[in-house]
Amino acid sequence: MARKRDPDREAQRRSDILQAAARAFIREGLRGTSIATICKEAGISPGHLYYYFPSKEALIEAMAEADLAAIRGYAQHLHTLDELLDAAVASSEFMSHPYNEPGKLLEGALAFDLHAEATRNPRIHAIMDRHYRDISALFGERLAAAQKAGGVNAAHDPVKLARLVGAVREGLLVMSAIGPDMVDAEMRSVARRMLEAAARG
Amino acid sequence: MARKRDPDREAQRRSDILQAAARAFIREGLRGTSIATICKEAGISPGHLYYYFPSKEALIEAMAEADLAAIRGYAQHLHTLDELLDAAVASSEFMSHPYNEPGKLLEGALAFDLHAEATRNPRIHAIMDRHYRDISALFGERLAAAQKAGGVNAAHDPVKLARLVGAVREGLLVMSAIGPDMVDAEMRSVARRMLEAAARG
Repeated sequence: MARKRDPDREAQRRSDILQAAARAFIREGLRGTSIATICKEAGISPGHLYYYFPSKEALIEAMAEADLAAIRGYAQHLHTLDELLDAAVASSEFMSHPYNEPGKLLEGALAFDLHAEATRNPRIHAIMDRHYRDISALFGERLAAAQKAGGVNAAHDPVKLARLVGAVREGLLVMSAIGPDMVDAEMRSVARRMLEAAARG
Repeated sequence: MARKRDPDREAQRRSDILQAAARAFIREGLRGTSIATICKEAGISPGHLYYYFPSKEALIEAMAEADLAAIRGYAQHLHTLDELLDAAVASSEFMSHPYNEPGKLLEGALAFDLHAEATRNPRIHAIMDRHYRDISALFGERLAAAQKAGGVNAAHDPVKLARLVGAVREGLLVMSAIGPDMVDAEMRSVARRMLEAAARG
């Protein structure tokens, strides 16, 4: 007799596996991590892993979805241009010590691996392209609301502005991974003022 | 009788090996590339490779040196703020088609791999940290000269300004590797004006 499926339990198990896989990827690299390593880290069998995620790409796709849900969650608390820019610039602080942001999966070392892999693997490229577009669209909506409230120059396309903010955020993350002291509070503050002037001007 | 060393020939051989190793790293990833693959790509024996470069880290270190020399070469033709910003922003265009800039080794996929590897391998971290500091110092000198000529606000620390420009450049590179159409001419132009306002203001 087949065991009855328990959706809550399966969702929890999926989430646990994603966290375990992210830890392994961050530690040993996306290419350097075997299915055996992920199973060991998650404490499950290969058959069990395969039932949830049939490939590394399926894991990355699910991580992107989980990240988008988490980002959507905190973005709904960001209303003004100030709040949006604070959030964008502050995120590079996380790079100074642990290499990924708590609760987010595609951060730090794994994000950098994915940038490289996106140039080689069309499936990873498609996942990352979609992910960055989803995030730009999400923050574009928040910036459009700030624009209606008068905080952002009406001439800007809010999605393009969100991409510019996103590009600066990515650059600060890379720089702070390489030299944490190169991206200090002053640098973040200068970057934030620069983005603010671009958004208002 | 030992064969006489020929310094010119050895320098050419070193350069050929670096180019071959960079091609292999870009294609198969830093971790995914074996010494055997590098030897095959360069058409040499493992003993021969080892004579020039005893490790992957030694290859990366030599690539960083070669890149710095190349950057120094073209930076000496950049004098005004306009020229410096044009060069910084234009470099993200290279990401749209081939994945590395001709003549530069640590670009695109390999640079992204190195960002990830820097979070795991202290020797790679040290090489990249040094490389980014060297480049910031180099462009800091160029910006200091532009500052003396009146093109950059005297209140700025030119090295910190160079790091800010570098961070925006890195972010545009990442975004254009993922979605070339996300970083179009308009986005580059907005990013450039934003940096110009920050430098002059």
